Amino acid sequence: MEDPRWLSPQEQRAWRAHLAAHRLLFYQLDRDLQGSGLSLNDYEILVNLSESPEHRMRMSELADATIQSRSRLSHQISRMEAAGLVVRENCEDDRRGTFAVLTGRGWEIIQKVAPDHVVSVRRHFIDLLTPEQIALLDEIYTPVVNHLQSVRSPR
Amino acid sequence: MEDPRWLSPQEQRAWRAHLAAHRLLFYQLDRDLQGSGLSLNDYEILVNLSESPEHRMRMSELADATIQSRSRLSHQISRMEAAGLVVRENCEDDRRGTFAVLTGRGWEIIQKVAPDHVVSVRRHFIDLLTPEQIALLDEIYTPVVNHLQSVRSPR
Repeated sequence: MEDPRWLSPQEQRAWRAHLAAHRLLFYQLDRDLQGSGLSLNDYEILVNLSESPEHRMRMSELADATIQSRSRLSHQISRMEAAGLVVRENCEDDRRGTFAVLTGRGWEIIQKVAPDHVVSVRRHFIDLLTPEQIALLDEIYTPVVNHLQSVRSPR
Repeated sequence: MEDPRWLSPQEQRAWRAHLAAHRLLFYQLDRDLQGSGLSLNDYEILVNLSESPEHRMRMSELADATIQSRSRLSHQISRMEAAGLVVRENCEDDRRGTFAVLTGRGWEIIQKVAPDHVVSVRRHFIDLLTPEQIALLDEIYTPVVNHLQSVRSPR
């Protein structure tokens, strides 16, 4: 077997900077949300539901949108159901499964929390970058996202 | 209270592309490691230990290096200890706590898995980018990482 093409020092730095930036950012945004009682995962689920018609999504679509396994999402939705943020609904006419639906309380909370969350995203990420860098991120990540979605195996 | 400065469409796209790229990448790299019995978190802990003098690190340093809480790391190390990859050692002369130490088996495994992991990092990320984009990522994320490390509260 040939030697693997190890990462060059520059590639290594970029890769580690990407990992570290994401982890630190996730940690900080999650921490900034603590006062609201939501985790960053909760927040993203509420955002996805709040942007969907009738504030509802199939569990399978929600798992795809938030990039997590069905089983992990299911545990998460159970916790959010217990907190009164969402409910599960089965559609009798439709065998394709269960929906997650935003409750009135979930809708109230996402509207209350969103302004603080955007301050936090700006402070710890967006406002640290120039407009050119922001445009570049989009350009850099779009092919990565497309590639990864195409190789992602069906659940 | 003033209206929050909501993200512009461009900022929103960049932010979401960053999140999606990271999540999909994490999912894929974790999946590619499955055959080896390691998770991506296990892998990073093994890499950190293998690059440290005498293959050992204080738990507190390892938590900082891998950007996770002490308690989460502690659970993770217990699982890895059960798998024979690392051991915990207490240093009697040093009250600053416990070390995690790579075992011979952990060292063997990281050497065996690393070549496949680098193929996976190249295939799903590095080789999708131009050298200019790679240099830019480093430039874009370094101030973000520095900022986030400076605001990160001490444990």
